[in-house]
Amino acid sequence: MLNLPQRVEIHEEGPREGFQIEPPGFSIADRVALVDALAQAGLRQIQVASFVNPQRVPQMADAAELFQSLHRRPGVRYTALWLNVRGFERACAATGVDLVGSLYFYASDAFCQMNNGTSARDHAQSQREWVSRYRAVNLPVESAYVMTAFGCHVEGEVSEAKLAQSLRFLAELQAQEGFVTPKVYLADTVGMANPQSIARRVDLAREILPQARIGLHLHDTRGIGMANALAGLQAGVDLFDASIAGLGGCPFTGGAHGASAGNICTEDLAFLCAELGIETGLDLGQLVEAARLAERIIGRRLEGRLMHSGLPTRGRAATP
Amino acid sequence: MLNLPQRVEIHEEGPREGFQIEPPGFSIADRVALVDALAQAGLRQIQVASFVNPQRVPQMADAAELFQSLHRRPGVRYTALWLNVRGFERACAATGVDLVGSLYFYASDAFCQMNNGTSARDHAQSQREWVSRYRAVNLPVESAYVMTAFGCHVEGEVSEAKLAQSLRFLAELQAQEGFVTPKVYLADTVGMANPQSIARRVDLAREILPQARIGLHLHDTRGIGMANALAGLQAGVDLFDASIAGLGGCPFTGGAHGASAGNICTEDLAFLCAELGIETGLDLGQLVEAARLAERIIGRRLEGRLMHSGLPTRGRAATP
Repeated sequence: MLNLPQRVEIHEEGPREGFQIEPPGFSIADRVALVDALAQAGLRQIQVASFVNPQRVPQMADAAELFQSLHRRPGVRYTALWLNVRGFERACAATGVDLVGSLYFYASDAFCQMNNGTSARDHAQSQREWVSRYRAVNLPVESAYVMTAFGCHVEGEVSEAKLAQSLRFLAELQAQEGFVTPKVYLADTVGMANPQSIARRVDLAREILPQARIGLHLHDTRGIGMANALAGLQAGVDLFDASIAGLGGCPFTGGAHGASAGNICTEDLAFLCAELGIETGLDLGQLVEAARLAERIIGRRLEGRLMHSGLPTRGRAATP
Repeated sequence: MLNLPQRVEIHEEGPREGFQIEPPGFSIADRVALVDALAQAGLRQIQVASFVNPQRVPQMADAAELFQSLHRRPGVRYTALWLNVRGFERACAATGVDLVGSLYFYASDAFCQMNNGTSARDHAQSQREWVSRYRAVNLPVESAYVMTAFGCHVEGEVSEAKLAQSLRFLAELQAQEGFVTPKVYLADTVGMANPQSIARRVDLAREILPQARIGLHLHDTRGIGMANALAGLQAGVDLFDASIAGLGGCPFTGGAHGASAGNICTEDLAFLCAELGIETGLDLGQLVEAARLAERIIGRRLEGRLMHSGLPTRGRAATP
């Protein structure tokens, strides 16, 4: 099975991804309970909410209150997403947010234009200001995401040359500003990756950023998300974002390009790792409980599989 | 990507798997339309129905009428399942059934006991009679299935030694009776396989039955079905059973052991193959249409992904 890692770290995206796409109105208590269940299952980094424009994303208007209400456990990082200075300032001012200094790049110019009203190149340039901004509050740059690293629904596949441009921009920025980003994620933002492009592009990222640990942020838009995860594991990737119960996918807002398909499912990915003998530090039974709690809160069937089938009632055979 | 085959053959199981698990009462016209859509999409072998006890499986009581109503296309095989002599006789007597001589073995003794009231060994012995029975009507043995080839929910994982017993029994039966089975399937009947066991057991089957083409019949019980399919492709497997829209899975009868989880999804598997540059002869757009037709007929959301997200609106980049 090629270069499987011995240990994989899974970061949880569900509480933010999931509730951002649902209608507003889920209680703080329910969302705190879900975050608690996730921490209980062994997840050590949980993205709880985003600090974004409450007019445009009313679901996240209560982010500060949500963070304040968490039952924080030692050893768990409760993280937030922000997209602009105002959001970052709110995150800094809130109680209970574990700030992670993150940079964002776009391999797809068309997608960046659509989402940010600016070219991928100009957006990349703007990250230089974030380096200073983080430095000003003594926050190290911990991770960088290359969004649409495999393509998007506007441009189709993004070439490896374009991805390399984003990665080289980061390499140069690091050299100029004198920092190293420990974690660099290839984000398959709308689900355009396949097992071959995973293998090739993980190699490419390692070549351009040899000091970074390469992570994958995958979406299961077209049913091959777990095959892509396997390809990542076979390439030695040991850092994944995932979403409990596959939260974030929504049957009602799917649209033609499937942009709303969720992250790959945390407990199914953890099950794959367990089956391959890869340590995750996660308790599968408690993950399934957390996924079922998410389903009760959301109030409709979610996409995860293990949560519906349950763990195998009997384990592995002792010897072949 | 290891030994990916150039071309993969996918056999469709949906019309039988799917409607067998739903309540009775779906019209002949709807089921004919689905089979038609599948043939239209390029599938060349479609399991339409089973000839089984109509008291126990009323959904399939009209199997003969269904076969008679098909709009047969040249080059497409419309196949049936039977489990005993009575069923085989009904299939032989029906109009429009493309008979495929199949043998069945069980790697899990407990599962065989539960399903057939007999030991795996006695069940294997009974296959000798099927060889004669097929010979009597001039039907070659075309395929053999080893059910629960990876384990079952009663025994847990079945050892490779036990699987080897089933495969060796077939090898000896072939030698004694003077025939060769061209297609031998490892069936992950309740979804216990993982990418490593796929790789190891496909090798084992090839070692014991070097003249057979090894196929995989996978169920996506715990979300790793497509990772298992990728492992099969990487081992050079070029023959898969699959089910349109993931038909056969049912949220209402899942049960603790997930025994009712469907086959891996035809169009998602075909999409994976297409992404890897593997020829299937299938039209992805028409497969998606067939999956959506299945969903309209069944009347609830089905598990397939591509059918909900749609094909990528833009294709691959011309060059990297």
